[in-house]
Amino acid sequence: MSGAVSPLAPKTYPNMPALRGVRMATAAAGIKYKNRTDVLLMVFDAPASVAGVFTKSKCPSAPVDFCRANLSHGTARAVVVNSGNANAFTGVKGRAATQLTAQSAAAAVGCTESEVYLASTGVIGEPLDATKFAGVLGEMNERAQGDFWQDAASAIMTTDTYPKVATRTAEIGGVTVTINGIAKGAGMIAPDMATMLSFVVTDADIASSALQALLSAGVEPSFNSVTVDSDTSTSDTLMLFATGGAAVDGQARVETADDPRLDGFRAALNDLLKDLALQVVRDGEGARKMVEVTVTGAETDAAAKRIGLSIANSPLVKTAVAGEDANWGRIVMAVGKSGEMADRDRLAIWFGDVRVAVNGERDPDYSEAETSAIMKQEDIAVRVDIGLGSGRATVWTCDLTKEYVAINGDYRS
Amino acid sequence: MSGAVSPLAPKTYPNMPALRGVRMATAAAGIKYKNRTDVLLMVFDAPASVAGVFTKSKCPSAPVDFCRANLSHGTARAVVVNSGNANAFTGVKGRAATQLTAQSAAAAVGCTESEVYLASTGVIGEPLDATKFAGVLGEMNERAQGDFWQDAASAIMTTDTYPKVATRTAEIGGVTVTINGIAKGAGMIAPDMATMLSFVVTDADIASSALQALLSAGVEPSFNSVTVDSDTSTSDTLMLFATGGAAVDGQARVETADDPRLDGFRAALNDLLKDLALQVVRDGEGARKMVEVTVTGAETDAAAKRIGLSIANSPLVKTAVAGEDANWGRIVMAVGKSGEMADRDRLAIWFGDVRVAVNGERDPDYSEAETSAIMKQEDIAVRVDIGLGSGRATVWTCDLTKEYVAINGDYRS
Repeated sequence: MSGAVSPLAPKTYPNMPALRGVRMATAAAGIKYKNRTDVLLMVFDAPASVAGVFTKSKCPSAPVDFCRANLSHGTARAVVVNSGNANAFTGVKGRAATQLTAQSAAAAVGCTESEVYLASTGVIGEPLDATKFAGVLGEMNERAQGDFWQDAASAIMTTDTYPKVATRTAEIGGVTVTINGIAKGAGMIAPDMATMLSFVVTDADIASSALQALLSAGVEPSFNSVTVDSDTSTSDTLMLFATGGAAVDGQARVETADDPRLDGFRAALNDLLKDLALQVVRDGEGARKMVEVTVTGAETDAAAKRIGLSIANSPLVKTAVAGEDANWGRIVMAVGKSGEMADRDRLAIWFGDVRVAVNGERDPDYSEAETSAIMKQEDIAVRVDIGLGSGRATVWTCDLTKEYVAINGDYRS
Repeated sequence: MSGAVSPLAPKTYPNMPALRGVRMATAAAGIKYKNRTDVLLMVFDAPASVAGVFTKSKCPSAPVDFCRANLSHGTARAVVVNSGNANAFTGVKGRAATQLTAQSAAAAVGCTESEVYLASTGVIGEPLDATKFAGVLGEMNERAQGDFWQDAASAIMTTDTYPKVATRTAEIGGVTVTINGIAKGAGMIAPDMATMLSFVVTDADIASSALQALLSAGVEPSFNSVTVDSDTSTSDTLMLFATGGAAVDGQARVETADDPRLDGFRAALNDLLKDLALQVVRDGEGARKMVEVTVTGAETDAAAKRIGLSIANSPLVKTAVAGEDANWGRIVMAVGKSGEMADRDRLAIWFGDVRVAVNGERDPDYSEAETSAIMKQEDIAVRVDIGLGSGRATVWTCDLTKEYVAINGDYRS
C-alpha cells in the first residue's frame, strides 16, 4: 500500500529454483487492488503430503476453518490464495465463498475438494466475491509453471512492501532435496501458532504425519517468535507440502519425524522458517529498525520467551527504539509486567555488546556515547539476563513509528 | 512535557475543599524539571487510617517496596511524592534514597518512619538524589495548608498535560464526610492493581482494614479497567487515607467494610476512583479520542474484562480510532486473540448506537455515513456482544496517535 520499500528489506533476493512436483500461476482478479496480481494457484500434479499450523484466534477466518477440516485427509493437489480480502467474520457468505473456490479449484486441476487448501488475506469483515477468481482457476492451471516463486510471493502481499521468499537444500539419504518458501505479512503480526500466510514446498518424499511434526516444532523458534504489533491475525496460516519429486533420484520415503535421515532436512527447514519469519518482521508496518531480544537466565525457556515477548510487544520499548533511545528503564518495566519470576537486583541488560545495567542499577561503566552508537544502527540486539536459571529464548520485533500509526489509521477507508 | 493540553481534558475543574486532618505543601527541588514544582508533602497531624494497592510488576520501584512494608503498621502521618524520577531499578541506591526521605519526613512532622509513605514517578533506572528534597521537608511542613489540592496534583505530573483532581461527599451515620483525590499518569498505563500515582483522602473515621477492603474492591472497575498503552508501570500506587476528622461532628468510627453505614461512602469512593481513572485515560499520551469498550454476553465478568482489555490494548483498534475508521474487523481480531470463548457467528458489534455487525457478518442495515459520524466524535462507545452468557465489563482507553510515538521516542533523552 505504502509506496516505499522498507529500509530493512533484503538487499538481494535469492534465485528461487523450480521445484519438482509443483506449478504456479497468478492472476489479477481486482478483488481490492488495481493493476496488480491478487490470486495465486499452486498445483501439485501428484498428491503431495501436507502439514499446517493455523491461528489460535477464537474467531478464525473461513479459509482457516476449511484448511483445518481438510488436513485430516493428508494430501494436497491445489492451493488457492487471494489477497485484498481475508474472508474473515463473513459468516455464512464466507463459508459459501470457500466452497465455491474449492469446487472451482478441484474442477480445474482434477482432484477432490478435500485435496484443496485455501487462504485469504486482507480486510476483515467484508464479504469476499469469490466468483472474481473462481472462474479463472482453470485457465490458471493451464499456464501454471514451476519457476514462479517470486511472482507467487508478490501476488499474496497486502501492506507488505516486498515479496518474501527463501530457499534451502538438504540431503536425505544422500539425495539432495530442495525447500522453497514464500510468506506475506507486515501488520497484525503476533503469531500464536503461525503467522499470516506462508507456504513452504519441498520435493522431498516425506509422509504428512512426519511433515506435521517437523512443522509444529519448527514454527516455535521462527514464526511464533516474532511480533510486529502484538495483534494476532484471524488468518494466520503456515503450510508445508512435500511433493515427493525427489523419489525419482532414489530418495526413499520418510515416514516419521524422528527418522535420523531427516536431521539435515529439519535444520534446513528451521533455517528457512526463521528466514521467512524475520523477513516478515523486517517488513513490519512503518518499521525502521529490527530488534532481536534475547532473554537468558530465566526460570525456564517458556518463561524466557514470555519475558522476551513482553519486551518485544511493549509500545514504550518500541517507541524508544524508534527514537534511538537506549531506555533500559522500559526494558525493566516490560520484564516486570511479564508476570514471570524476576529479581530486580539480579537483572542485567545489554544493547548490542554494551552492558547498560547490572545488579539492579545502571552499569558503573555505562557510556552514553557507546550506547547511542548502537541505537543508531538498523539492527539492534537487546539481551536481558534474569539471573535466576538457565531458561533462554530469542524473539524478534521492529520499532513502533509514526508511519505505523499512519498506515493503520487509514487502511480500510 | 508536551506544551499543549489534551483536547480531552476536563472543561472545568471542581472546587477542591480543604479536608479536616490533612495539610499539604509543594516545592521545586529541580529533580528533573526546571521552573515547576516536583515534590509534594502531605501531612496528617493525627495518625490516619491507611490502605494501598500497588503495581503487580515483578520489578517494583523502591518506594513501592517501602510502602508495602509500612502498610502493616496501619497508620500514616506523612506522604512524600516526587516527580521526575521513579526511583525504580536503582538497587541499593534506591533503597538508601527511600530511607533518607523517610527519616527526613519523620523528623519534619514528628513521627516514626513506619508512618511515612513514599511515591516517585518519572524516569526509570536513574539514581534519585533524595538530598534535593529531603532537606526541605521541615520547611514544607511548616507552611503546609489544607486548601492545596490543585497544586498538589500539579507537583506530581510527568507527561500529564493537566492535573487530575476529584471530590465527593457522602454521609456516614448522618454525618457528612468528604473524599478528595488526586492522580497523575498519561503513559505506561495498564494497571494491574493500581495505576501510576493516586492519593485519596477522606475525613471519615474508618479503620484501616475496612479502608483496604473498600479500596481493593473499588480499584477493579476504575483504575484496573483503564489502559493507555498496555504497559504496566513499576510504580503504580493508589493510596487511601482516612483522617477521622469527621469524628468531631459525631461520626462514629467504622471498623469493617461490610458495615451498612458505608454504603453511601462506598458509592462515592467508587465514583471518585472512576472519575480519576478516566481523567488518566483522557490525558493518555497523544490521545485525541476517548474509547469506552463494553463487552456483554461473555461467559463470565472476568472473561468480558479480558476481551475488553484485548480490544482496548490492540494497536490496530487504537490506530483505527485515531483514523476515525469504524474498522470492526479489528474488533473481531481482538476478540479472537483474547483467548476467551467466542463464537464468530454470534458476535454483534456497535459503534455508539449503530450496530455495524451481527451474527458473524456486516449488519444488513449498516450505514457508512451514520458510523462515520460517530467515529468523528471525541468520545466513542464500542459495544461487543459475545452471545454466549451474561458476563459483562466496561474498560476505557484512548486512541493511538503519531503524537504517542513522538512523545515516547524522545522522553528520556
